[in-house]
Amino acid sequence: MVDVDARASEQEKIWTAALVIIGDEILSGRTQDANLAYLARWLNIQGIRLKEARVVADDTAAIGEAVNACLAAHDYVFTTGGIGPTHDDITVDAIAAALGVPVVHHPDAVAILTRYYGDKVTEARLRMARVPEGAELVPNPETGAPGIRLGRLFILAGVPKITQGMLRGLDGQLAGGRPVLSRAVGAWAQESAVADLLAKVQADHDGVQVGSYPFWREGKGGANFVLRSVDEAQLGLAVEALKTALTAKGIDAQEGEI
Amino acid sequence: MVDVDARASEQEKIWTAALVIIGDEILSGRTQDANLAYLARWLNIQGIRLKEARVVADDTAAIGEAVNACLAAHDYVFTTGGIGPTHDDITVDAIAAALGVPVVHHPDAVAILTRYYGDKVTEARLRMARVPEGAELVPNPETGAPGIRLGRLFILAGVPKITQGMLRGLDGQLAGGRPVLSRAVGAWAQESAVADLLAKVQADHDGVQVGSYPFWREGKGGANFVLRSVDEAQLGLAVEALKTALTAKGIDAQEGEI
Repeated sequence: MVDVDARASEQEKIWTAALVIIGDEILSGRTQDANLAYLARWLNIQGIRLKEARVVADDTAAIGEAVNACLAAHDYVFTTGGIGPTHDDITVDAIAAALGVPVVHHPDAVAILTRYYGDKVTEARLRMARVPEGAELVPNPETGAPGIRLGRLFILAGVPKITQGMLRGLDGQLAGGRPVLSRAVGAWAQESAVADLLAKVQADHDGVQVGSYPFWREGKGGANFVLRSVDEAQLGLAVEALKTALTAKGIDAQEGEI
Repeated sequence: MVDVDARASEQEKIWTAALVIIGDEILSGRTQDANLAYLARWLNIQGIRLKEARVVADDTAAIGEAVNACLAAHDYVFTTGGIGPTHDDITVDAIAAALGVPVVHHPDAVAILTRYYGDKVTEARLRMARVPEGAELVPNPETGAPGIRLGRLFILAGVPKITQGMLRGLDGQLAGGRPVLSRAVGAWAQESAVADLLAKVQADHDGVQVGSYPFWREGKGGANFVLRSVDEAQLGLAVEALKTALTAKGIDAQEGEI
């Protein structure tokens, strides 16, 4: 691929992340994941690229393998799901086993849960205070039970509202680089009619990646072209070049997605 | 985990599949994947379990590694995305490279595209007739450009309407086993209040897996409990046991998700 980072990486470190989505409910098709897209956009604001994601079952070995593989390949790893109070919530145990550390009750998490549930705190609820040894907590502004941070590994909730609350608390806390900027050009043209032109715009603009996303609406075909770069000036030149090239072919193109 | 297949696997082969979702647009958060959930449910009807999914960038090495890893671990592998006519559609080349076979124009695909585009067929459009050598075509009832089958590997489109059309054409064509049946019980109870009871119902019913999925609505907490098994009778017993146990605790429980 022509990487948006081809240009940047000569001068600066590119920070990357992976997401491990944990849950049989995703793999059975019962639940539609909503965390990947949110995390991707949140990471980009922090100057970090989401480079891969994996969806794994509620299975100790599968969770451990995915987390270790992603830790080996990326600066940051996030997991979502499986940190609740029930028997199918095995994320903490699976990750601790994969990292070779014991599971302990975090005293601050015990305090948070005891305050949250009052005299209704139970052993099941205190399961949510269990962390791999050495972990810090990630505050949960929604429902008390915290997320977990182990260095560059973040163990977050699966319920999107809670995941998003945890991420808000991490805003600006992670080292990152320049965010990827993106601009879109929409056209009522079949992408196959302008394929050469798209490739040329990309080739002519170092560090700019051009993606083509076709759609069909009301019986008509069109496409949105998304241009991405860390370099704002270069990105602007590519957008103008694309609009000019489309117009020269008699195609009605507009800035922004249609 | 307590596997829904723990019981079945003593008598029968369990067929598994993986999905590789290809596309920078998913990893940037621009596009919400909609193929995983559809494929998961479609596979279950065929008696095949979706066991893992990976989302990878438009990157030759990343696509190849994911496809090879999934082929090594599962009976079937599906990919979605990156088979269109533009420069960022590199799935066919990446997979052919990973499998060590050349890319060729499939004569039937050339014929389909020539018929579909008439005298507007171009080299860019004929890119969509390129397949790894030895491949068969998967018909596309929506837009002409076919999907690709290479034995137990299926290379499908990324646009959900097209992906779904391709899957419909594959209905009943793949060897599989018994589908997983599922039934749900919904309750206005916090899952942490009934965690022990859920674990007991699962432990008491061999081959039944109980998932717990909390929600918050109108300021109230509740949870849906999804019971899954290949054994209909065993599943029915577990559902009754769960309803009885919840009712005994004074919790209003109903069959079906709430």
